[in-house]
Amino acid sequence: MSTLESRIGCPILRNRVKTVEEVLPLFKDGMNLGWSGFTPVGYPKAIPKALANHVEANNLQGKLRFNLLVGASVGTETEDRWASLDMISRRWPYQSGKNIQKGINSGRILMNDKHLSMFAQDLLYGFYTKDLGGKLDIGIIEASAITPEGNIILAGSVGIASEIIQTAERLIIELNTAIPSHEGLHDIIIPDLPPNRQPFLISKVCDRIGQPWVPCDPNKVVAIVESREPDNGRPLGNTDHVSERIAGHILDFFESEVRAGRLPSNLLPLQSGVGNIANAVVGGLVNGPFSDLTVYTEVLQDTMLDFFDSGKLNFASATSLSLSEGGFQRLYDKWDEYTSKIVLRPQQLANNPEIIRRLGVIAMNTPVEFDIYAHANSTLVGGSRMINGIGGSGDFLRNAFLSIMHTPSVRPSKTDPTGISCVVPMVPHVDHTEHDLDVVVTEQGLADLRGLAPRERAETIIYRCAHPDYRPILQEYLDRASSICLAKGCGHEPHMLDKVFRMQQHLAEHGTMKVKNWD
Amino acid sequence: MSTLESRIGCPILRNRVKTVEEVLPLFKDGMNLGWSGFTPVGYPKAIPKALANHVEANNLQGKLRFNLLVGASVGTETEDRWASLDMISRRWPYQSGKNIQKGINSGRILMNDKHLSMFAQDLLYGFYTKDLGGKLDIGIIEASAITPEGNIILAGSVGIASEIIQTAERLIIELNTAIPSHEGLHDIIIPDLPPNRQPFLISKVCDRIGQPWVPCDPNKVVAIVESREPDNGRPLGNTDHVSERIAGHILDFFESEVRAGRLPSNLLPLQSGVGNIANAVVGGLVNGPFSDLTVYTEVLQDTMLDFFDSGKLNFASATSLSLSEGGFQRLYDKWDEYTSKIVLRPQQLANNPEIIRRLGVIAMNTPVEFDIYAHANSTLVGGSRMINGIGGSGDFLRNAFLSIMHTPSVRPSKTDPTGISCVVPMVPHVDHTEHDLDVVVTEQGLADLRGLAPRERAETIIYRCAHPDYRPILQEYLDRASSICLAKGCGHEPHMLDKVFRMQQHLAEHGTMKVKNWD
Repeated sequence: MSTLESRIGCPILRNRVKTVEEVLPLFKDGMNLGWSGFTPVGYPKAIPKALANHVEANNLQGKLRFNLLVGASVGTETEDRWASLDMISRRWPYQSGKNIQKGINSGRILMNDKHLSMFAQDLLYGFYTKDLGGKLDIGIIEASAITPEGNIILAGSVGIASEIIQTAERLIIELNTAIPSHEGLHDIIIPDLPPNRQPFLISKVCDRIGQPWVPCDPNKVVAIVESREPDNGRPLGNTDHVSERIAGHILDFFESEVRAGRLPSNLLPLQSGVGNIANAVVGGLVNGPFSDLTVYTEVLQDTMLDFFDSGKLNFASATSLSLSEGGFQRLYDKWDEYTSKIVLRPQQLANNPEIIRRLGVIAMNTPVEFDIYAHANSTLVGGSRMINGIGGSGDFLRNAFLSIMHTPSVRPSKTDPTGISCVVPMVPHVDHTEHDLDVVVTEQGLADLRGLAPRERAETIIYRCAHPDYRPILQEYLDRASSICLAKGCGHEPHMLDKVFRMQQHLAEHGTMKVKNWD
Repeated sequence: MSTLESRIGCPILRNRVKTVEEVLPLFKDGMNLGWSGFTPVGYPKAIPKALANHVEANNLQGKLRFNLLVGASVGTETEDRWASLDMISRRWPYQSGKNIQKGINSGRILMNDKHLSMFAQDLLYGFYTKDLGGKLDIGIIEASAITPEGNIILAGSVGIASEIIQTAERLIIELNTAIPSHEGLHDIIIPDLPPNRQPFLISKVCDRIGQPWVPCDPNKVVAIVESREPDNGRPLGNTDHVSERIAGHILDFFESEVRAGRLPSNLLPLQSGVGNIANAVVGGLVNGPFSDLTVYTEVLQDTMLDFFDSGKLNFASATSLSLSEGGFQRLYDKWDEYTSKIVLRPQQLANNPEIIRRLGVIAMNTPVEFDIYAHANSTLVGGSRMINGIGGSGDFLRNAFLSIMHTPSVRPSKTDPTGISCVVPMVPHVDHTEHDLDVVVTEQGLADLRGLAPRERAETIIYRCAHPDYRPILQEYLDRASSICLAKGCGHEPHMLDKVFRMQQHLAEHGTMKVKNWD
């Protein structure tokens, strides 16, 4: 028996093994496709790449276009290459890659940006494919094995794979034999639809409430294709001095909250986004004073393996193993040890408000920028240009015990090393509102906003978080706006609407946000 | 035994009955006070009014100021009179009244605006009174009775009464003998703090998971004061032609969703805000084709009694009986019949994301305005002037099965009957983001935004919802912004930041939002 056959426990499905070439004719222009995968792990590779080759070889650019629904981003060799070949007409709910972003921001690709937990749910409700009665035409799922009953054992992520398996008319399984069977790593449930939905009985990070496989009707599986292609994993960025200072402020804050009795000594379950600052925070925890910690988050990066190795992290729940190639090797080398402390859940549960609020998660995410009243922009540079999408940041920040956003205070423009302030009078796009954020942090300092009114928040943020180059500029904006609005009796949250985006306009015109004055 | 004594089941508490005058010396300048009450029902009246009289009689304006924490708004004869006497230094998380709003917008009163479910929770976490170790100095609770064990049977609302009873150092009970004992109407639980919090096992609107009283340590109760003052209830606004057209669009939409199989024939639990449109929607349901309906909402208005009387409403869950004087009389006249179908819960549960998402609530609320990409402003007129607060709108809209916002397409300015468009290029303050809203409605029509990308949403909203006077103005904005941003490769959500608030500025300068052109 080949490795492939040994991974297919269900006898009738062994007869559905096909080559990539055999399945390509199933794909028709205009179809709604669902892929497994999340922050590029566990996504189908062989078929998307073969379809791209087919389009390229036959000059079918713009003639074979799909609506593409995936839990979050997938490897650039798939979605981004598809974008470059004009194979994507619509993309839900998050993406990454230069070509797909170019397509979205030039109007060629439509993108529908949605909270990841809500996206999974609304897909099952039939909100995105109303013309198909809520179905998808084809689902492509990367799996690591199939049970004797035909149920699917996923690979390194869950994302919306279980929703796709429910809603797709036809399924193609990419069975990856280059990775071990991931049996036992996942905790899968298919929630009933309202009004029959039941509570998600997860009261501790390590609680399991489902099955290790996704239930699947074998009749839907039209093909199984073997794949041996690795995930195009996320290399770890280096940490830097700025990120380390931000992490230092956050760890100091945790210590003071423990001393005040508002946090237990082992904190509360941690959610941490991706990127340099998130890595620096985890690095700080590896070397820090806290132990018996838990993680309830969206993706696990390489630093989480260090965190386990430190003995300070007891358990982690996520929806994806967003590891580098080296990280996966470390995982495979100590598979039993690591996986006894990890569970992967559907993103509908990993990011679920119910569970996040119950567990009291401490959420930490990086925005593009925040404003003096603590609204944050996570998605649209300058209010118009899409980067990746809101992802799970809203799911966590709106429900966390402590909602923390962290960013460098400035970024370089082309001509000024501190030309872009990440603290502005008003963000030109709001993804997270002032009602949601408890704490904002830059390398300059940390602003604890709990219980503060808007003008108090503004004073605190400018004083603690803004870069010294921008502190007087922002303070003058606040003083002038306050003076005008309070005199007019409209000063709860003072603004000058005729000047509020002047820093952004100054950047566009002069390459820096350093406005000379507010006259 | 007097009526008062008969309502106090706990013998040791009968000795703590005091006059209003006897408790006034307990109140000191700078104290943190928690009151029961929610959208003016169930709030203390006798003591706040006596304190106001005391301040007025002794010229203590500005010398006896309090931080005031209440679940939502209370009667204007209390908080608004306090504001007029400069007795409020800080107010959480929602308010109503001309004087308090004037105080907030002129800078004399600080207000901290927060989602109501989160506010209740963060109060227990100690986030608002860090200097007091999370305690309140005094809690004043309107009750309808006290059990033999000293536990508190609340009156016509729950709000944050149970959290106040937990966190206040001292409690004063205003026992209202002019209303019947409300025993059996409430469902109270005190959630554990994370990491020990457990699921809220409410899977149907009528499920009860707690006790009919709030647990209370009798040693905390320093006084019981008799009150016979009625709630300053909310009179019902008349419905109007515009509201009825909006309600008609919503009912048509429900019918089409049922036909498409995306809603059950008895819909899903309904949440409806307050105001004319909400009343028109309920009025439409009273006369409409749906039956076996349920309500999971924040407040019950008079129209809900008609809804029960129609035989179409099976059960309603809320945190407050926001009835008019006549409405309360109807309720008392058929107490057993109505109250067998009503439960009042703490606002932490009435507005809880966990339960709202599980039940699949249909949420409907009125904003100040929304923009062409479906961000909504619920709190700050012109971006700066506070009205009431976000209340529960975010709790519901972020978690609902269907998130609906409804507003007239225009409002009159002083000089132009259609001088203010409720559809604008960009709202000057965002409380609800584009990631949250499924449907927006005006009397002009309904825009179903599910699955649409930003530029598609804008086309749909302008075409279906904008007033004809503003349709060409908004379309020109969209066309110009799209043309500029798409050419520059930043056109996912096109905007012209230098012109985006021109309609608001035109209103301030010329009394109408009808800008002549976008040059």
